[in-house]
Amino acid sequence: MPRPRNDTFLRALLREATEYTPVWLMRQAGRYLPEYNETRARAGSFLELCRSPAFATEVTMQPLARYELDAAILFSDILVVPDAMGLGLYFAEGEGPRFERPLREEWEIRDLEVPDPYVSLRYVMDAVAEIRRALDGSVPLIGFSGSPFTLACYMIEGGSSEDFRRVKTMLYDRPDLLHHVLDVNARAVTAYLNAQIESGVNAVMIFDTWGGALACGAYREFSLRYLSQILSGLLRSREGHRIPAIVFTKGGGNWLEEIAGSGCDAVGLDWCVDLGAARGRIGDRVALQGNLDPMVLLASPEAIQRESRRVLDSFGAGPGHVFNLGHGVIQHTPPENVGVLVRTVHEYSRAQRSGGG
Amino acid sequence: MPRPRNDTFLRALLREATEYTPVWLMRQAGRYLPEYNETRARAGSFLELCRSPAFATEVTMQPLARYELDAAILFSDILVVPDAMGLGLYFAEGEGPRFERPLREEWEIRDLEVPDPYVSLRYVMDAVAEIRRALDGSVPLIGFSGSPFTLACYMIEGGSSEDFRRVKTMLYDRPDLLHHVLDVNARAVTAYLNAQIESGVNAVMIFDTWGGALACGAYREFSLRYLSQILSGLLRSREGHRIPAIVFTKGGGNWLEEIAGSGCDAVGLDWCVDLGAARGRIGDRVALQGNLDPMVLLASPEAIQRESRRVLDSFGAGPGHVFNLGHGVIQHTPPENVGVLVRTVHEYSRAQRSGGG
Repeated sequence: MPRPRNDTFLRALLREATEYTPVWLMRQAGRYLPEYNETRARAGSFLELCRSPAFATEVTMQPLARYELDAAILFSDILVVPDAMGLGLYFAEGEGPRFERPLREEWEIRDLEVPDPYVSLRYVMDAVAEIRRALDGSVPLIGFSGSPFTLACYMIEGGSSEDFRRVKTMLYDRPDLLHHVLDVNARAVTAYLNAQIESGVNAVMIFDTWGGALACGAYREFSLRYLSQILSGLLRSREGHRIPAIVFTKGGGNWLEEIAGSGCDAVGLDWCVDLGAARGRIGDRVALQGNLDPMVLLASPEAIQRESRRVLDSFGAGPGHVFNLGHGVIQHTPPENVGVLVRTVHEYSRAQRSGGG
Repeated sequence: MPRPRNDTFLRALLREATEYTPVWLMRQAGRYLPEYNETRARAGSFLELCRSPAFATEVTMQPLARYELDAAILFSDILVVPDAMGLGLYFAEGEGPRFERPLREEWEIRDLEVPDPYVSLRYVMDAVAEIRRALDGSVPLIGFSGSPFTLACYMIEGGSSEDFRRVKTMLYDRPDLLHHVLDVNARAVTAYLNAQIESGVNAVMIFDTWGGALACGAYREFSLRYLSQILSGLLRSREGHRIPAIVFTKGGGNWLEEIAGSGCDAVGLDWCVDLGAARGRIGDRVALQGNLDPMVLLASPEAIQRESRRVLDSFGAGPGHVFNLGHGVIQHTPPENVGVLVRTVHEYSRAQRSGGG
C-alpha cells in the first residue's frame, strides 16, 4: 500500500514543506452537487448511500471528478456508531437525524456495549476498501467519526437540539452516568477508527460538532478528555507511514491550546478564529486546518478569491496548513464557486511560496 | 433622581468594592414564571406586553417580587427599533420574530431612516418612567438595545436564521450596502439608548446576539466598529452619576480584548469562556458580567450551588464582577431554582470577601 501520488495533504498535516497549500472541504460530497442528488435519488435515502459501499464510493468520488481536491473523505454519517449500538438511526424529512431508541433510562445506559466495527459496521469498512480501489493511489482518503460527546448529545437528546437540555441536565445532575456513556463512546470510536485505518484510510478526523456548546470546565471534563482517550488508543502508523489525526471542535476557539495538546496532529478551526492568531497561540506543535466561512461560497468569484487569499495570508507561507472551510459546504452553494475556491487556493499558495503572494 | 438604595450592581460595573457579588439574570422576566404567562395571556400577545407601559412595568417587576435581584431590566424586545423603522415586526406562533417588510432591495436600504425614539418608541420611554416609579428607588434599572449587526441580521434575513445566508452574502458581495444598514442602525441605537438614559435607566446593555457568527475580521469590521460608534455617542452620565454600558457578544470569546477596548464599562460573557482566564486577558480595564450555563438551572439545588460557586471562584474575590447567566433563562426553568441561585451567589460571595469562601 504505497503513499498516494499526491500526498500534499498528508505532508501538510505533518508540518512538512509542500509546494502549495492542500485543500479539501468538509461535506465536499453533498447536496450542492446535482450528481449527488441524482445518486441519492437512485439509492432511495441518505442512509442507503451510507450503507451501500457502491453508492458510498460513487458519491465520495464525485467532487474529485469536478475539482482538484487534495483529499477524499469517506462518505458516511457520524451517527452510524450509535446506530450500531442499537439505537435505531433514521432521518425524518426536514428534521435531520433521529434515534428510535434514545437513552432515557439508567438501565439503557448501563447496557450500552462497544460494537465490533468489523461486524455491525462492516459496510463502512467495505466502503473504505472500495473507495481506495476507486482512488487508485491518486489522493489520500480521510476516515472519520463523531466525538464521544457529540455522539452522546444525539443519543441522549434523541436528535438535534437547540439547547442540549437533556444531555446538560445529565451532565450537571448525573455526571457519573454521562461519563459512562462517554467512556463507551470513546472505546467504540477508537475501535471504529482503528478498523478504518486497518481498512485503508490515510488520515482520520474526529468531529466534535457540539463540544463548543459546553462551559469551559465541562468541555475539558466531558469532551476533551475523551478525545485524548481516543487519540492515545489509535493506530498511528501503518506500514511505516504515520496516520495523522485531526480534531475539530466547532466553537472551540477558547480552548485551542488544550486541543493542540490532546495528542492530535492537526486542529480543525471554525471561521470565527483568526488563523494567524491561532498559529501564534499554538506554535508549531500541530498543523491547522481551516477556516473559510462556508457562506463565502455563496458570494461572487471576486469575493471568494479575496476571502480565501485572506485566509492564506493570515496563516502565512510556512508549513502546516490544510485549507478547508470552517464548517461543511452548504446546500445552496453553486458548484462552480467551489472550483473558483480550489483554483485560488492552489495558485495563490504557490505564489506565496515563491515570494510572489 | 438619587442613586438606588441598592447600588451594588452599579458599583460592581465601575469596579468599585461591593459587600457581595450582585446578580441579575438575562430574561429574568419570562415564560418560566407563571405570573408572567398570566399577564401575557391578559395582554393577548408578547408585542402588547412590550407596547403597553403598564404591562411592561408589571412583568419587569415580577422577578423582583420573587428574588433578591440586584437590578431590574426594562421589559422590551431588541426588534422594536427596526419595527420603528417601518419593517413591521410580528411573531409567528412557534417561529419567533419576523418582519413583514424585510430589506430585500437596494432602494429599501437607501430609504432607511433613524426613527425619533420620542415619537415612534415613545411607549418604551413611558415604560421606563413607569418602571422607575414602581421601583421606587430600590434597585437600578437596565436599559438595552440590540447591536447594529444583530438588528441587521433580522432586518435582512426577515427573521431568525440558522446560517445568516442573506446577510453574509451581502457582507461578502455588497459590503457597502451592509455598512449603510449598520450605520443607520448605530445612529438609531445611539438615539434610542440616549432616550432611555434621559428617561431614567441607570445602565445600558447592548446585545450582540449574532456577532459570534462572524469570521474574525468581519466581526471587527461589521459588528465591533458599530458598537464603538454607539459607545462614543452615548450619554455616559446623568446628574453627576456615571451610566455604565455593558456589551455582550454571544460567542465573542475569541475577541474579548477587542471588546474590552470598545469603550464599554463591562463585557458580558457567555458560558463557554472561563471567567478567570477572561479576567487574566482583559485585566482591570472593564468589569465582567456572567457567565453560568443557563442549563444549570434545570439541575438539582446541589448542582446549582456547586456550579454557581465555581463561577464565583473562577472570577475570585476582587471587584468588578456582576453575576449573570451566559444567556437568557430558558422557559423550562423551575422558578424555585432561580431562588437557589440568587441566594447562593449572595451568600457565597459574602463569604469569599470575608475570607471564608
